[in-house]
Amino acid sequence: MVLTEKEPDFDKGGGLIPAVVQDATTGEVLMVAYMNPASWRETLRTKKATFWSRSRGSLWVKGETSGHFQIVREIRLDCDADAVLIKVEQMGGAACHTGHRSCFYRRLTDEGWVVDGERYFDPEKVYG
Amino acid sequence: MVLTEKEPDFDKGGGLIPAVVQDATTGEVLMVAYMNPASWRETLRTKKATFWSRSRGSLWVKGETSGHFQIVREIRLDCDADAVLIKVEQMGGAACHTGHRSCFYRRLTDEGWVVDGERYFDPEKVYG
Repeated sequence: MVLTEKEPDFDKGGGLIPAVVQDATTGEVLMVAYMNPASWRETLRTKKATFWSRSRGSLWVKGETSGHFQIVREIRLDCDADAVLIKVEQMGGAACHTGHRSCFYRRLTDEGWVVDGERYFDPEKVYG
Repeated sequence: MVLTEKEPDFDKGGGLIPAVVQDATTGEVLMVAYMNPASWRETLRTKKATFWSRSRGSLWVKGETSGHFQIVREIRLDCDADAVLIKVEQMGGAACHTGHRSCFYRRLTDEGWVVDGERYFDPEKVYG
Protein backbone atom coordinates (compact mmCIF):
# COMPACT_ATOMS: atom_id res chain seq x y z
CA MET A 1 0.00 0.00 0.00
CA VAL A 2 1.45 3.32 -1.06
CA LEU A 3 -0.59 6.41 -0.38
CA THR A 4 -0.94 8.66 -3.34
CA GLU A 5 -1.54 11.63 -1.09
CA LYS A 6 1.65 13.05 0.31
CA GLU A 7 0.03 14.54 3.41
CA PRO A 8 -0.73 12.71 6.63
CA ASP A 9 -4.34 12.46 7.79
CA PHE A 10 -4.78 15.45 10.10
CA ASP A 11 -8.54 15.06 10.52
CA LYS A 12 -8.60 12.20 13.04
CA GLY A 13 -6.75 14.17 15.70
CA GLY A 14 -8.72 17.38 15.26
CA GLY A 15 -6.18 18.88 12.88
CA LEU A 16 -3.05 17.73 14.69
CA ILE A 17 -0.85 14.64 14.46
CA PRO A 18 1.85 13.58 16.89
CA ALA A 19 5.38 13.72 15.49
CA VAL A 20 7.97 11.50 17.13
CA VAL A 21 11.44 12.97 16.79
CA GLN A 22 14.29 10.49 16.78
CA ASP A 23 18.03 11.05 16.59
CA ALA A 24 18.96 9.89 13.08
CA THR A 25 22.32 8.55 14.26
CA THR A 26 21.77 7.04 17.69
CA GLY A 27 18.08 6.12 17.44
CA GLU A 28 17.34 7.88 20.73
CA VAL A 29 13.79 9.23 20.90
CA LEU A 30 14.20 12.93 21.57
CA MET A 31 10.67 14.28 21.89
CA VAL A 32 7.06 14.18 20.81
CA ALA A 33 5.42 17.30 19.43
CA TYR A 34 2.41 18.08 17.24
CA MET A 35 2.05 19.15 13.65
CA ASN A 36 -0.79 20.80 11.79
CA PRO A 37 -0.80 21.05 7.98
CA ALA A 38 1.08 24.37 8.00
CA SER A 39 3.88 23.07 10.22
CA TRP A 40 4.08 19.89 8.15
CA ARG A 41 4.56 21.90 4.96
CA GLU A 42 7.11 24.18 6.62
CA THR A 43 9.04 21.13 7.78
CA LEU A 44 9.16 19.80 4.22
CA ARG A 45 10.06 23.19 2.77
CA THR A 46 12.78 24.18 5.23
CA LYS A 47 14.02 20.73 6.30
CA LYS A 48 13.90 22.05 9.87
CA ALA A 49 11.43 20.36 12.21
CA THR A 50 8.52 22.74 12.68
CA PHE A 51 5.59 22.06 14.98
CA TRP A 52 2.33 23.52 16.20
CA SER A 53 2.64 24.73 19.77
CA ARG A 54 -0.58 23.78 21.53
CA SER A 55 0.24 26.03 24.49
CA ARG A 56 1.12 29.11 22.42
CA GLY A 57 -1.29 28.41 19.58
CA SER A 58 1.31 29.21 16.94
CA LEU A 59 3.85 27.68 14.57
CA TRP A 60 7.02 26.69 16.37
CA VAL A 61 10.30 26.23 14.55
CA LYS A 62 12.15 23.94 16.95
CA GLY A 63 15.34 25.79 17.92
CA GLU A 64 14.13 29.26 16.92
CA THR A 65 15.06 30.63 20.37
CA SER A 66 17.91 28.33 21.38
CA GLY A 67 19.50 27.86 17.96
CA HIS A 68 19.16 24.12 18.53
CA PHE A 69 17.40 23.33 15.28
CA GLN A 70 16.50 19.83 14.19
CA ILE A 71 17.67 19.14 10.65
CA VAL A 72 15.37 16.59 9.02
CA ARG A 73 17.08 13.51 7.61
CA GLU A 74 14.10 11.18 7.09
CA ILE A 75 10.32 11.25 7.47
CA ARG A 76 8.23 8.12 8.01
CA LEU A 77 4.44 7.68 8.18
CA ASP A 78 2.54 5.14 10.24
CA CYS A 79 -0.02 2.62 9.02
CA ASP A 80 -3.01 4.83 9.81
CA ALA A 81 -1.28 7.91 8.39
CA ASP A 82 -2.01 9.78 11.60
CA ALA A 83 1.47 9.89 13.14
CA VAL A 84 4.88 10.68 11.71
CA LEU A 85 8.40 9.75 12.70
CA ILE A 86 11.00 12.42 12.00
CA LYS A 87 14.64 11.40 12.06
CA VAL A 88 16.81 14.43 12.70
CA GLU A 89 20.25 15.76 13.34
CA GLN A 90 19.92 17.64 16.62
CA MET A 91 21.87 20.89 16.64
CA GLY A 92 23.40 21.86 20.00
CA GLY A 93 23.23 18.30 21.29
CA ALA A 94 19.97 18.62 23.20
CA ALA A 95 16.33 18.56 22.17
CA CYS A 96 14.78 19.43 25.52
CA HIS A 97 14.24 22.94 26.86
CA THR A 98 15.55 21.64 30.21
CA GLY A 99 18.95 21.08 28.58
CA HIS A 100 18.63 17.30 28.47
CA ARG A 101 19.46 15.49 25.27
CA SER A 102 16.00 13.90 25.20
CA CYS A 103 12.74 15.16 26.66
CA PHE A 104 12.30 11.60 27.96
CA TYR A 105 14.95 12.06 30.65
CA ARG A 106 12.90 10.41 33.42
CA ARG A 107 12.66 6.67 33.91
CA LEU A 108 10.04 4.92 35.98
CA THR A 109 11.33 2.91 38.92
CA ASP A 110 9.67 1.35 41.93
CA GLU A 111 10.53 4.57 43.79
CA GLY A 112 8.97 6.84 41.15
CA TRP A 113 10.46 8.85 38.28
CA VAL A 114 14.24 9.07 38.28
CA VAL A 115 16.21 11.51 36.13
CA ASP A 116 18.89 9.64 34.22
CA GLY A 117 19.14 11.63 30.99
CA GLU A 118 22.26 13.48 29.95
CA ARG A 119 22.21 17.27 30.30
CA TYR A 120 23.89 19.34 27.60
CA PHE A 121 23.21 22.96 28.56
CA ASP A 122 21.94 25.21 31.31
CA PRO A 123 18.48 26.42 30.24
CA GLU A 124 18.91 29.73 32.13
CA LYS A 125 21.89 30.59 29.94
CA VAL A 126 20.08 29.66 26.74
CA TYR A 127 16.61 31.06 27.35
CA GLY A 128 17.54 33.78 29.90
CA MET B 1 13.32 17.62 39.10
CA VAL B 2 11.66 14.38 40.14
CA LEU B 3 7.89 14.24 40.04
CA THR B 4 6.35 12.91 43.20
CA GLU B 5 3.28 11.82 41.29
CA LYS B 6 3.76 8.56 39.46
CA GLU B 7 1.10 9.22 36.85
CA PRO B 8 1.53 11.22 33.67
CA ASP B 9 -0.60 14.32 33.14
CA PHE B 10 -3.63 13.08 31.23
CA ASP B 11 -5.59 16.34 31.43
CA LYS B 12 -3.81 18.33 28.73
CA GLY B 13 -4.74 15.90 25.96
CA GLY B 14 -8.35 15.50 27.02
CA GLY B 15 -7.66 12.35 29.04
CA LEU B 16 -5.23 10.74 26.61
CA ILE B 17 -1.46 10.85 26.17
CA PRO B 18 0.55 9.56 23.23
CA ALA B 19 2.74 6.56 23.99
CA VAL B 20 5.72 5.98 21.73
CA VAL B 21 6.64 2.32 21.59
CA GLN B 22 10.28 1.56 20.88
CA ASP B 23 12.06 -1.77 20.46
CA ALA B 24 14.14 -2.11 23.64
CA THR B 25 16.96 -3.86 21.79
CA THR B 26 17.24 -2.20 18.39
CA GLY B 27 15.85 1.25 19.19
CA GLU B 28 13.44 1.06 16.25
CA VAL B 29 10.27 3.08 16.82
CA LEU B 30 7.45 0.56 16.40
CA MET B 31 4.26 2.58 16.82
CA VAL B 32 2.42 5.41 18.52
CA ALA B 33 -0.77 4.71 20.45
CA TYR B 34 -2.75 6.42 23.18
CA MET B 35 -3.18 5.75 26.86
CA ASN B 36 -5.83 6.83 29.32
CA PRO B 37 -5.35 6.36 33.09
CA ALA B 38 -6.89 2.86 33.03
CA SER B 39 -4.62 1.61 30.24
CA TRP B 40 -1.62 3.21 31.95
CA ARG B 41 -2.35 1.32 35.17
CA GLU B 42 -2.97 -1.94 33.31
CA THR B 43 0.36 -1.51 31.55
CA LEU B 44 2.12 -1.12 34.90
CA ARG B 45 0.23 -4.00 36.48
CA THR B 46 0.58 -6.55 33.67
CA LYS B 47 3.85 -5.33 32.08
CA LYS B 48 2.10 -5.73 28.74
CA ALA B 49 1.59 -2.56 26.73
CA THR B 50 -2.08 -1.63 26.98
CA PHE B 51 -3.65 1.29 25.18
CA TRP B 52 -6.93 3.09 24.68
CA SER B 53 -8.33 2.44 21.24
CA ARG B 54 -9.77 5.72 20.00
CA SER B 55 -11.60 3.97 17.15
CA ARG B 56 -13.16 1.23 19.27
CA GLY B 57 -13.51 3.31 22.43
CA SER B 58 -12.17 0.52 24.64
CA LEU B 59 -9.07 -0.76 26.38
CA TRP B 60 -6.74 -2.51 23.99
CA VAL B 61 -4.13 -4.99 25.14
CA LYS B 62 -1.66 -4.86 22.27
CA GLY B 63 -1.42 -8.43 20.92
CA GLU B 64 -4.72 -9.65 22.40
CA THR B 65 -5.86 -10.91 18.97
CA SER B 66 -2.55 -11.69 17.28
CA GLY B 67 -0.64 -12.95 20.33
CA HIS B 68 2.02 -10.38 19.49
CA PHE B 69 2.18 -8.78 22.92
CA GLN B 70 4.61 -6.05 23.84
CA ILE B 71 6.48 -6.88 27.04
CA VAL B 72 7.43 -3.66 28.83
CA ARG B 73 11.12 -3.26 29.63
CA GLU B 74 11.31 0.44 30.47
CA ILE B 75 8.99 3.42 30.76
CA ARG B 76 10.13 7.03 30.33
CA LEU B 77 8.24 10.29 30.81
CA ASP B 78 8.79 13.51 28.89
CA CYS B 79 9.50 16.96 30.31
CA ASP B 80 5.87 18.07 30.25
CA ALA B 81 4.69 14.72 31.63
CA ASP B 82 2.22 14.45 28.77
CA ALA B 83 3.88 11.76 26.65
CA VAL B 84 5.52 8.45 27.52
CA LEU B 85 8.13 6.31 25.85
CA ILE B 86 7.65 2.57 26.31
CA LYS B 87 10.59 0.32 25.51
CA VAL B 88 9.36 -3.18 24.77
CA GLU B 89 10.20 -6.65 23.67
CA GLN B 90 7.95 -7.25 20.66
CA MET B 91 6.48 -10.75 20.60
CA GLY B 92 6.04 -12.26 17.12
CA GLY B 93 8.51 -9.87 15.56
CA ALA B 94 6.02 -7.30 14.30
CA ALA B 95 4.14 -4.45 15.93
CA CYS B 96 1.95 -3.46 13.01
CA HIS B 97 -1.39 -5.04 12.11
CA THR B 98 -0.18 -4.98 8.48
CA GLY B 99 2.53 -7.48 9.41
CA HIS B 100 5.36 -4.97 9.25
CA ARG B 101 7.83 -4.82 12.08
CA SER B 102 7.10 -1.11 12.63
CA CYS B 103 3.93 0.83 11.88
CA PHE B 104 6.27 3.42 10.37
CA TYR B 105 6.99 1.30 7.30
CA ARG B 106 6.61 4.16 4.80
CA ARG B 107 9.35 6.66 4.02
CA LEU B 108 8.82 9.97 2.30
CA THR B 109 10.68 10.43 -0.98
CA ASP B 110 10.40 12.95 -3.79
CA GLU B 111 8.04 10.47 -5.47
CA GLY B 112 5.80 10.08 -2.43
CA TRP B 113 5.57 7.46 0.32
CA VAL B 114 7.60 4.33 -0.32
CA VAL B 115 7.19 1.10 1.65
CA ASP B 116 10.58 -0.05 2.89
CA GLY B 117 9.72 -1.71 6.21
CA GLU B 118 10.26 -5.40 6.85
CA ARG B 119 7.17 -7.62 6.84
CA TYR B 120 6.97 -10.44 9.38
CA PHE B 121 3.55 -11.99 8.87
CA ASP B 122 0.55 -12.11 6.59
CA PRO B 123 -2.25 -10.19 8.35
CA GLU B 124 -4.95 -12.35 6.73
CA LYS B 125 -3.51 -15.42 8.40
CA VAL B 126 -3.26 -13.73 11.79
CA TYR B 127 -6.50 -11.76 11.89
CA GLY B 128 -8.53 -13.94 9.52
